[in-house]
Amino acid sequence: MAGSVRKSGGLYAGSVLTIDLDAVRWNYRFLRGKLGARVLCGAVVKADAYGLGAQYVAPALHAEGCRDFFVAHLDEGLRLQSHVPESSIYILNGLPSGGEADCVHAGLVPVLNSLEQCQAWSMRARKLGKALPAVIQIDSGMNRLGMSQREIAGWVKGGSQFSGIDVRFVMSHLACADVPSHAANAMQLAKFRRLADHFPGLPRSLANSSGIFVGKDFHHDVVRPGAALYGINPVPARSNPMRQVVRLSARVIQVREADRGDHVGYGWDFRTSVAARLATLSIGYADGLHRALATSAVYFEGQALPIAGRVSMDSITVDVSSLQPDRLGAGSEVEVIGDHQSVDDLAEAMGTIGYEVLTGLGHRYERNYLGAADVSRAEFVGELQA
Amino acid sequence: MAGSVRKSGGLYAGSVLTIDLDAVRWNYRFLRGKLGARVLCGAVVKADAYGLGAQYVAPALHAEGCRDFFVAHLDEGLRLQSHVPESSIYILNGLPSGGEADCVHAGLVPVLNSLEQCQAWSMRARKLGKALPAVIQIDSGMNRLGMSQREIAGWVKGGSQFSGIDVRFVMSHLACADVPSHAANAMQLAKFRRLADHFPGLPRSLANSSGIFVGKDFHHDVVRPGAALYGINPVPARSNPMRQVVRLSARVIQVREADRGDHVGYGWDFRTSVAARLATLSIGYADGLHRALATSAVYFEGQALPIAGRVSMDSITVDVSSLQPDRLGAGSEVEVIGDHQSVDDLAEAMGTIGYEVLTGLGHRYERNYLGAADVSRAEFVGELQA
Repeated sequence: MAGSVRKSGGLYAGSVLTIDLDAVRWNYRFLRGKLGARVLCGAVVKADAYGLGAQYVAPALHAEGCRDFFVAHLDEGLRLQSHVPESSIYILNGLPSGGEADCVHAGLVPVLNSLEQCQAWSMRARKLGKALPAVIQIDSGMNRLGMSQREIAGWVKGGSQFSGIDVRFVMSHLACADVPSHAANAMQLAKFRRLADHFPGLPRSLANSSGIFVGKDFHHDVVRPGAALYGINPVPARSNPMRQVVRLSARVIQVREADRGDHVGYGWDFRTSVAARLATLSIGYADGLHRALATSAVYFEGQALPIAGRVSMDSITVDVSSLQPDRLGAGSEVEVIGDHQSVDDLAEAMGTIGYEVLTGLGHRYERNYLGAADVSRAEFVGELQA
Repeated sequence: MAGSVRKSGGLYAGSVLTIDLDAVRWNYRFLRGKLGARVLCGAVVKADAYGLGAQYVAPALHAEGCRDFFVAHLDEGLRLQSHVPESSIYILNGLPSGGEADCVHAGLVPVLNSLEQCQAWSMRARKLGKALPAVIQIDSGMNRLGMSQREIAGWVKGGSQFSGIDVRFVMSHLACADVPSHAANAMQLAKFRRLADHFPGLPRSLANSSGIFVGKDFHHDVVRPGAALYGINPVPARSNPMRQVVRLSARVIQVREADRGDHVGYGWDFRTSVAARLATLSIGYADGLHRALATSAVYFEGQALPIAGRVSMDSITVDVSSLQPDRLGAGSEVEVIGDHQSVDDLAEAMGTIGYEVLTGLGHRYERNYLGAADVSRAEFVGELQA
């Protein structure tokens, strides 16, 4: 039965972040529906599940059947472990030096990005006298993480030098999958296949969220969606097929009457052209609303309220003149992300992408988790009692 | 005796944030030195001390004699309380509805920004049959927080309606103090004085960090520096008189050789013009490095390393061709903020201000606190034992 958890960032937070775990689960099912029956659908929950709280998001995905979780850091994997029983947790940034023992002990699977990381993992395996799981990352043309063609040749030549590594699959990452027609996609696919052929018989993984939509050729054996699970549009040129996961609203601190020609905010950059009613909201750039947002709007009962003046650290001021005076007052909640402004819309207004909006969400919010929480909490309790 | 505390965000963090509490203390003393003997120097520690950790920063300031701390939210005040004994904690965003009892119980001082907040606080005082402390905020022309001329008139007229409020001081906030010659400063000062005259005999507070440098006229009785304590230049047009507080370094994950014409990062936006050696660092926009940073650099042993391609969520790639190949490898630490790039420099490269860089600092860092920690830890222990 679906429930909800209120995990408050504080009793008197100025703004309220609501995360719909049912929507995360729907998104996971939707993406899985795009895949062939033999393709595994993992989930990327790095950066605290893109800022949404991995300890809530990952169990919701686990309840949907997901058993393959991707994080960036070993630290993230160590923290995630107890929340996703009988699952594989992959460390995308690879093995940090000195982290081998903890990685083995926790049963985490490092993504080996370089020959150096392969050597360290192989040495550990031989020292322990048992095979250790890993994923091999191949660079297919993004030049960020993974082994180059030269290094792959080194691996092949190294032979027994890399014994003891139980390679679960080989993977690479797409640089331009959000633009399906981008020439990079086919080029990366061809290079990935060519280099993966050096690892005959092993499963393959290439597609992120957007990669799933580029075509079945890109799916291989394991896909690794992240952004789309959290409601970000995986194909920006088309309408968003994903459900919105995040709602963010900010509370009004006070409302004031401003005269024509009054200045608002830092730098006196903004000046009212007519007498106006202004509301100051308890949300600012310390909460993740970039200062670059200055020319956008928030919403109240569907009405756009333009931001007046610069975003402050702890507040923004908006023009509420278009509302009847009795409709909005101190304590009213105004939509920053919701039905009228998606994560992607807000990102566009800040000159960035939805990913950065989510990972930049602050820590002063009252956080509410909707849906599916009872199930996962029961599992947590089971875990704790076991 | 000065010491240091290592408070790790994790054992295997990809990047290291070092906060110099001795520098915070030096900055506090420096600012206090600019003030007349009768002027109180408070400290703004809202937004977790601008992202640096209020539970470490506030005790360091307390050890310097600071007893007046400003936060934005009641929640922040409640958390700060035990770290700064025998001090006043002021809530700049004012009284949240329903928070009156907790505010009274914790002995926090709300900044009353509107007649509504005054009424609520006065009612609470009369109900309890005792005076309750507060600060009155006057809007002197920023139109953000505080009572307008009309509301001040309402207060004066209200008379006994607002009984029970023990007004500690009246305050306002400057919109343009970082530009000392800005006409707004004199206009706000005049308006503040005129409106503060409605509260005869009460102390006054107007200046933030930058306001301290605009002139003695702006100091009044209490000043409220924040940014300058943390090393941000309070007078951007002049050289920075403050000590740097923050160092940030990122670890190398791997180094690769790229051919001429290779693409780097998302969107394939970047292409090497010659063969290059590239290093991928374990820091990205989830750690607070805005995606807008794409055209900047980081530093290694004083050498600028240009960022190649877009900032990813968990990594950036930099060109290390200018270094001898044996100088930098996996695990090397590269300076993001430090001797060669100040917080203000990084902010400029991201198209924002140092304040937003600091409040945007992520939570995956290994955090080290240098200096003065033994003193404050001893005080903590005393607190806990009392």
